[in-house]
Amino acid sequence: MENGYKRAVIDSVEPEVHQNEFAAKRIVGQPVKVYADIICDGHDLLSARLKWRRCSEEKWNETPMREVAADHWQGAFVPDAIGFYEYTVSAWVDHFKTWRLDLDKKIGAGQNIETDLIAGGILVEQAGSRAKGLEKKMLYEWAQKLKDPKVVEDEKVALAHDDLVILLTERYPDTRLMVEYPRAPHVWVDRERAGFSAWYEFFPRSASPEPGRHGTFKDCHAWLPYVAGMGFDVVYFPPIHPIGRTARKGKNNTLKAKPDDVGSPWAIGGPEGGHKSVHPDLGTLQDFDNLVAQARDKYDLEIALDIAFQCSPEHPYVSEHPEWFMHRPDGTIKHAENPPKKYEDIYPFDFECQNWQELWEELKSVFLFWMEHGVRIFRVDNPHTKPFPFWEWVIHEIHKHDPNVLFLAEAFTRPRMMNRLAKGCFSQSYTYFTWRNDKQSLTQYMQTLTDSPAKDFFRPNFWPNTPDILNESLQKGGRGAFISRLVLAATLSSNYGIYGPAYELMEAVPREPGSEEYLDSEKYQVRNWKLRREDSLCDLIARINEIRRENPALQSTNNVTFHHIENDSMICYSKTTPDGQNTVLIIVNMDPHHEQGGWTALDMKAMGVPTGQEYQVHDLLRGERYAWEGPYNYVKLSPHTVPVHIFRIRRRVRTEQDFEYFL
Amino acid sequence: MENGYKRAVIDSVEPEVHQNEFAAKRIVGQPVKVYADIICDGHDLLSARLKWRRCSEEKWNETPMREVAADHWQGAFVPDAIGFYEYTVSAWVDHFKTWRLDLDKKIGAGQNIETDLIAGGILVEQAGSRAKGLEKKMLYEWAQKLKDPKVVEDEKVALAHDDLVILLTERYPDTRLMVEYPRAPHVWVDRERAGFSAWYEFFPRSASPEPGRHGTFKDCHAWLPYVAGMGFDVVYFPPIHPIGRTARKGKNNTLKAKPDDVGSPWAIGGPEGGHKSVHPDLGTLQDFDNLVAQARDKYDLEIALDIAFQCSPEHPYVSEHPEWFMHRPDGTIKHAENPPKKYEDIYPFDFECQNWQELWEELKSVFLFWMEHGVRIFRVDNPHTKPFPFWEWVIHEIHKHDPNVLFLAEAFTRPRMMNRLAKGCFSQSYTYFTWRNDKQSLTQYMQTLTDSPAKDFFRPNFWPNTPDILNESLQKGGRGAFISRLVLAATLSSNYGIYGPAYELMEAVPREPGSEEYLDSEKYQVRNWKLRREDSLCDLIARINEIRRENPALQSTNNVTFHHIENDSMICYSKTTPDGQNTVLIIVNMDPHHEQGGWTALDMKAMGVPTGQEYQVHDLLRGERYAWEGPYNYVKLSPHTVPVHIFRIRRRVRTEQDFEYFL
Repeated sequence: MENGYKRAVIDSVEPEVHQNEFAAKRIVGQPVKVYADIICDGHDLLSARLKWRRCSEEKWNETPMREVAADHWQGAFVPDAIGFYEYTVSAWVDHFKTWRLDLDKKIGAGQNIETDLIAGGILVEQAGSRAKGLEKKMLYEWAQKLKDPKVVEDEKVALAHDDLVILLTERYPDTRLMVEYPRAPHVWVDRERAGFSAWYEFFPRSASPEPGRHGTFKDCHAWLPYVAGMGFDVVYFPPIHPIGRTARKGKNNTLKAKPDDVGSPWAIGGPEGGHKSVHPDLGTLQDFDNLVAQARDKYDLEIALDIAFQCSPEHPYVSEHPEWFMHRPDGTIKHAENPPKKYEDIYPFDFECQNWQELWEELKSVFLFWMEHGVRIFRVDNPHTKPFPFWEWVIHEIHKHDPNVLFLAEAFTRPRMMNRLAKGCFSQSYTYFTWRNDKQSLTQYMQTLTDSPAKDFFRPNFWPNTPDILNESLQKGGRGAFISRLVLAATLSSNYGIYGPAYELMEAVPREPGSEEYLDSEKYQVRNWKLRREDSLCDLIARINEIRRENPALQSTNNVTFHHIENDSMICYSKTTPDGQNTVLIIVNMDPHHEQGGWTALDMKAMGVPTGQEYQVHDLLRGERYAWEGPYNYVKLSPHTVPVHIFRIRRRVRTEQDFEYFL
Repeated sequence: MENGYKRAVIDSVEPEVHQNEFAAKRIVGQPVKVYADIICDGHDLLSARLKWRRCSEEKWNETPMREVAADHWQGAFVPDAIGFYEYTVSAWVDHFKTWRLDLDKKIGAGQNIETDLIAGGILVEQAGSRAKGLEKKMLYEWAQKLKDPKVVEDEKVALAHDDLVILLTERYPDTRLMVEYPRAPHVWVDRERAGFSAWYEFFPRSASPEPGRHGTFKDCHAWLPYVAGMGFDVVYFPPIHPIGRTARKGKNNTLKAKPDDVGSPWAIGGPEGGHKSVHPDLGTLQDFDNLVAQARDKYDLEIALDIAFQCSPEHPYVSEHPEWFMHRPDGTIKHAENPPKKYEDIYPFDFECQNWQELWEELKSVFLFWMEHGVRIFRVDNPHTKPFPFWEWVIHEIHKHDPNVLFLAEAFTRPRMMNRLAKGCFSQSYTYFTWRNDKQSLTQYMQTLTDSPAKDFFRPNFWPNTPDILNESLQKGGRGAFISRLVLAATLSSNYGIYGPAYELMEAVPREPGSEEYLDSEKYQVRNWKLRREDSLCDLIARINEIRRENPALQSTNNVTFHHIENDSMICYSKTTPDGQNTVLIIVNMDPHHEQGGWTALDMKAMGVPTGQEYQVHDLLRGERYAWEGPYNYVKLSPHTVPVHIFRIRRRVRTEQDFEYFL
């Protein structure tokens, strides 16, 4: 038999990921909005509280929740630190609130309220019996007044409407009536960069200014102002470790390497060391440390490392721990394969080996090693080919050492696998963006990311290119495609990145027709780049990153709204901050070959513009301003100039003769 | 640290209602399909099992699950008894299956498989070490063969493809690799009528054939063949208890009753007794028992009672247990009110009273009392004004006595409250159907019911009218509206009901314009009905109930698919059985005044008709058959005859010279 006094019921609490098996993800300093369905039989009114705390603290904080739709309640708290938080919801039948509402209805209907006022007095008195000190005294005084036949009715009614009375009675509820949600859902709070970041990937071995010379960490110093100048905040390096020689791949992924071929950085390990060493041709660990420090201190750039848990046959692990690898019946170690494909330059770990605990600890120590060298962001290579429980463990372990560490999951695989990695605490995830090149599929994909349970755990990071993916749209679309894909990535997702300088220099030639591989890919050879080419997109990229920094609406992903535009080659969407102060409207011509025009049908409510009011659209790329009114506006964009508008929406705010009419 | 061998992960298991806080509802004898997302890192294949049992039994049953979409698995079990079941899901990396797939790929690529065959032999040997008896012997024998250098390769490959080997290795998995879903979701299995029922409500006091005489249970005997003849299977009576006199309502809900006014049956209780007594004017308890037995034995009709937990001021509870009611400060008992409205003929129970446990037990005993008198279906009046925890408790308690008991929740209130009552185990629920009178709102409502989490716990029961609701569409729509609303209720929802004879005799006059109350409502007076009127809809209703019985597709609700029809006054939908053997297509003209026509655009896949194949639509009301081909067909319906088509879809099944081309 349940407790009969507990009439409120609470369910459908959000955010909660898989019955609290995982934590919802949020950003420090940003409100965590909590929703719950809270109901009660009959017509009685409820009160509800949100309770929350850092998991490391004992004391709960409390804040009232409010009903924002029928039976649907909301509360919020702002986490001021990085790490785990938990919250729960409690609710109770609030007889005093119910009494006051009924009283008003009776007064409105001209009914006698004499006994009602006494009943109200009793309720206030009961609250008083639960209070202490001065508050107790106040409640008793009010109760006395409501029950006193000598006090005139008007005075009692005025007292019943005093908000102070509501607040104090709500503060001392009848705890017998109180119901608590049975779980305390967890929220993982990350630092800001987890939610808002611009990544730039380059190969340090291609950083040398002299053609033919292997680049070094020292060469990379000269790249820092270039990358920072474009407005990026994360520099991500492919693996920087010694590279194996067995079955080394030659240029353009040929099976037989020539003696001077440098090999793939993902074939990790050689006699010079493994995952905790740097390739001698790049310099020393000290050189790396200097670069990390310089990037951080002078350019506010973070260096992110690629962690690829696999070994070349010469990796020290192979001889020191042969038991960590898979073996054939004859005792030899198995190379990686996905039959009929063979990857003879790579040994995968055997996560089902007997010493799996030792292996897990060692892999964890790889992260800790680079953290000691100043790295706080890791891009993890192919995480979906290592056990999910391993990631869930290792990321939690690392976060115990430092909750500032961020992990980007490089998993291009099936949706459920990608989601699971994100649930298991990867801070950001690669996406299908690269292959969503038409309006319908891109819109639908954005809805999957932002309007599904995934929004609470999967943080997309949009890449228009990577060293592995030169999409057909870029191969064939020319400059127009490079601009439009960049703007889509940078404005649809608050986290995005490019692989440069291939991107800003618009490298577009595939290894062979139909392939997404780059010709002369840096994965297999050193390249020499002329960065300051006249046609480079670097200035445009710099402006777009500046717009992202200046407009908080672009610093979130889930706040996107798509608007109708009557042309299937054009896409139109806006983003607004929760406070409504900043709205950005983006229109892109996705046809890289032809000028396209179309009428918008804007959702004015989502844009925060009152019906019938004029507003200004301010093109942040071109500097032009237009006066628009209503949802219907004709827009024309050419791929031969800049095929995008990024409009700041400026609403009319003053009616006086001010200089600035639009905010 | 997790167990490193457990690489499979399981989540998004369905059906599961609120983290197993509630049970999903199913019907005895019908398959319970279980879905789960099951994934594993890398390319290894998985195997998975569904484990299930009756909660009252110790032994689990097991059945394999199969992957029905990428990473999405399905299994099923058929509950053969009424009551609680539970299930869970386990999964593991299946190295033998993976090995066989890789082997085939290597053979296809012409690669050497010598060592692979030995590796396979080892896997089979390991399975053998976990098996027993003859199965162990077989596995060892196969293992030997695969490892034997003297056996030719073709023979080994043939062995690898023997399904027996797959089955036996799957039966003896490496349990170290096995992962189990952490919960065992519950399923409540009801008898068939919970999912498929046709209700007929009438007031027994109006059953007398002589005008002016109060009807009796004995009079009701003559109604049984009438109701059974229309094909209904549940007869539902408004409360049959003594009626209070204090503040009794007169005809048409007037405040002052005349001495001969009979009062509302929902003002329960008088000096003659309360919830366990029958109104003396209806007869005796023995008369009631006789009626229940006759209905059951001769007409296969179940009598359902209305349970309304509220009391007239003369109810014996009031004097015997004044502590169960609410009191004013002066000690008098409070009547029901929803300010400014007062219901002075009714005292609500105080569920927050000190003796709430005693009250709960007494209310439970009301159900048990009527169960002793043969009742197994209860329609519960206004359950949303009594605590949700009470219902969750009392329904479980009653089900411990007899799991055959069904409960219909009469809650016309906000969606979240209605859903919660359903979660808390009400077998069926009243709905908003009555007010969904246009195509868009009806389609949307059906989607809310059948394509949301509610589909697992909320079983709608569609009523085109009730004694409380004479909807405007019926007031103004005439015969056409009465037919179309009936067909919509009876074919959209597998559970439906009408309040008769007001329905089949098309009573359409409201108490006053704008009201949904019936003029001269039976709620406040005895009526005398001429059942065999020539314009009665009873024959049409009989045919529709017959069609429902003959077509299993109409015996479920969640199997509905809406099809486009190019006329907003027309609605078009189909239902199909899971085996695809029975498909019914319904087209309704919802405009009660004008003939309407439109082109259909049928979803042929949902109809189970292969593209390009001719099919027959057989009008089950008119008997006509038409040959259709493809999705586009023109349909015209007039409200002045019968504004609906109920088509059985007959697909071509034989190409020979058979009599019956279409099944």
